[in-house]
Amino acid sequence: MTKTDLLVVGGVSGITAGISCRRHYPDKKVTLVRKEETVLVPCGIPYIYGTVGGPQNNVIPDGILEKNGIELIKGEAVKVDREKRVVTLQDGESISYEKLVLATGSLPMVPPISGIDKKNVFPIKKDFDYVGDVLATMESVKDLVIIGGGFIGMEFADECRKGRDINVTVVEALSHCLQLAMDDDFCAEAEATISETGVKILSNIKVESILGDDTVSGVKLSDGTELKADMVILGIGAVPNTELAKSAGIELGFKNAIKVDRNMQTYTDPNVFACGDCAEKVSFFTGRPIGVMLASIATSEARIAGANLYSMVHKNCGAISVFSTMINGRAFGVAGLTERMARQIGMRIAIGSAEAADTHPGGMPNSTMTKVKLVFAKETGVLVGGSISGGKPVGEMVNVLSACIMHQMTANDIVQFQMGTHPALTSSPIVYPIVNAACKAVISIKE
Amino acid sequence: MTKTDLLVVGGVSGITAGISCRRHYPDKKVTLVRKEETVLVPCGIPYIYGTVGGPQNNVIPDGILEKNGIELIKGEAVKVDREKRVVTLQDGESISYEKLVLATGSLPMVPPISGIDKKNVFPIKKDFDYVGDVLATMESVKDLVIIGGGFIGMEFADECRKGRDINVTVVEALSHCLQLAMDDDFCAEAEATISETGVKILSNIKVESILGDDTVSGVKLSDGTELKADMVILGIGAVPNTELAKSAGIELGFKNAIKVDRNMQTYTDPNVFACGDCAEKVSFFTGRPIGVMLASIATSEARIAGANLYSMVHKNCGAISVFSTMINGRAFGVAGLTERMARQIGMRIAIGSAEAADTHPGGMPNSTMTKVKLVFAKETGVLVGGSISGGKPVGEMVNVLSACIMHQMTANDIVQFQMGTHPALTSSPIVYPIVNAACKAVISIKE
Repeated sequence: MTKTDLLVVGGVSGITAGISCRRHYPDKKVTLVRKEETVLVPCGIPYIYGTVGGPQNNVIPDGILEKNGIELIKGEAVKVDREKRVVTLQDGESISYEKLVLATGSLPMVPPISGIDKKNVFPIKKDFDYVGDVLATMESVKDLVIIGGGFIGMEFADECRKGRDINVTVVEALSHCLQLAMDDDFCAEAEATISETGVKILSNIKVESILGDDTVSGVKLSDGTELKADMVILGIGAVPNTELAKSAGIELGFKNAIKVDRNMQTYTDPNVFACGDCAEKVSFFTGRPIGVMLASIATSEARIAGANLYSMVHKNCGAISVFSTMINGRAFGVAGLTERMARQIGMRIAIGSAEAADTHPGGMPNSTMTKVKLVFAKETGVLVGGSISGGKPVGEMVNVLSACIMHQMTANDIVQFQMGTHPALTSSPIVYPIVNAACKAVISIKE
Repeated sequence: MTKTDLLVVGGVSGITAGISCRRHYPDKKVTLVRKEETVLVPCGIPYIYGTVGGPQNNVIPDGILEKNGIELIKGEAVKVDREKRVVTLQDGESISYEKLVLATGSLPMVPPISGIDKKNVFPIKKDFDYVGDVLATMESVKDLVIIGGGFIGMEFADECRKGRDINVTVVEALSHCLQLAMDDDFCAEAEATISETGVKILSNIKVESILGDDTVSGVKLSDGTELKADMVILGIGAVPNTELAKSAGIELGFKNAIKVDRNMQTYTDPNVFACGDCAEKVSFFTGRPIGVMLASIATSEARIAGANLYSMVHKNCGAISVFSTMINGRAFGVAGLTERMARQIGMRIAIGSAEAADTHPGGMPNSTMTKVKLVFAKETGVLVGGSISGGKPVGEMVNVLSACIMHQMTANDIVQFQMGTHPALTSSPIVYPIVNAACKAVISIKE
């Protein structure tokens, strides 16, 4: 039996939890167990099929574990004896622990559609060999149908068409792709942007069944249309991977995610913590459980979990939901609530929007028009969300918003925001769109 | 006599003050008077000599005034009669006002060096025709000496060498270029970066005199060295342009900047406000007057001034000092205090540093290594500054820090920061350097 102090189960957000523990408790032995031989960067998976060229270029190097003094054991944890504080692996090996962090992630959702288990229908599993098989299959494909137009679906559509003579169709049940993440104006922009590449979007329509004998040959839609397809990718979301927790008697919550408090401690066992996609999240805005899964949330939770193992250091303020994506070279990002989400939770809001080029003056090359929409609570002026589309800086602009939201900055605060600007790096200070959007909102908040 | 409600004197931060007034007081007539036929983007001036190709590509279009219903009068304001509330222009025209905003900017500092008035020695004036003359002169120049290795000097050095067969030497009196703005490690990186272009840096040495007959032929240094030079550019800073204010009996403060309170109202006259380079600034951190001049501060002040004209809406929290620059394709930025500045004001501090590529995974193209150094107050853990070098996202990463500093976020807050990440747009969430730098600092703050 191996003996350790902190045992982390899971190879992605588990890394961050392990590092956080190592920093706060340098005397503790940290061991990470994972079933994967090689760990993929989850957000990088779509890029395997285009930009980066293969799974071997989308790997989290194990060097980060070594560098941080974290022992790695490869094997699948199949049982937790919480009384004895022992985890058993598939091969029979067992590991005793003082503290356990469950970072078992999520599994792709597979909808109960007739024919879903035919050959060449692929849910996207975070597995090195599996994604390699998907890539190999794709090389001989002519007609790819992607079911689900969320981020994963859109990123796959954009990447799979790169360097391939392939027809790509995205089928989305809602009226717009990305509708759960962005307001309609941004969704429409994203759809228009990807359509320029030849990717076809079919929205407001459901998949009825997958056609074909052993292997997929087509997709039948709810209006009776049949799409030709020799490959189908499922991008309809993920579910918490919590079988191990459940079998250990740990309380599950919303959508079977592991129930944790604000310290990332499980409700059931003070020695067991959880973080990342397998852990229940609550909204920063309402405190209610939400089903969102994002790297920004998972790593934050992992840092909190690792720090709190032996003494409460950090408290989780709840999921703000910050993300960005890239579609046909244009970046889209959201921090916090969209207008739709804010209205859905019954908030009276004030909106401010602004547009500006992301370099200045007009003569500066490589300029991209940036569009910002901010959502404020009408009564208090507090920023509750923002959506941005534009060029590469969008990735960090949503992080500016994330910081403002986290500390409940108001439209008045943001008007006074001192933003550094530079001709080659940002919008002009006169039109800097985050500030200008706030300036406009201030007026309607006053009214 | 023209009659207006708000009269703004000055064509750069004056625009923002005018727009802000227009937004808050839509019934008021807003008039902007300026002496320039065409207004240059101040931060864009170095780029006239390289990237953008000429002053005509570095202009703030007057359309922004029209669009915001601001009347433009071209002429030089030479007198303010505060009792009658009338401004007189050089051509004898006069304009009566209810409220006056002075946004008269700054003038380049010209050091009292022997020979400084020789032909082809150029302080950088923000004047369309003048910068065009400088450009015309530069085309036949072989040996350019830039006196002063601050931002302006470094940006000029980087741009002037582009597309020209020219020897560029920067002479800096301090031990490093950019030393007043960045810590030595970042200064050294900037110097190494620009040296790769062939630009020569001479630091820790003063200019004794400018050599030549009518026209400059060289520069004599304090150690007796003589540099060949057929052109000299002065980049040693700027002084507030406050002659008009002074002649109107308005109190001046630190370094002859116009004394204003936190509402941007002059100490002397409740109907006169000031903003931008001509207005006195106080430090966000100490409340003491400081001499910094930045677009991020000027536009923030202009928004505050415009909003406060008829009713106090915003309060100036003091200058955080946020800026970014680009040197030979690498971006450098600082928000708030550097380590040196923090120590100079007697602060006990904790430092956290981290590095990471600005895309992920490793296989992602167009990746730039990003270096972050954060400075926290040791006792409270509050973030007081951060320095970043890297690629294009640095421009907005310093704005993430600006937001965190403005709301006094602590290292603990930043550890929990939910930063959106994306393979093509940001660092990996595991190594996102702003958060990781905070994680390291947390440990040393605890000690």
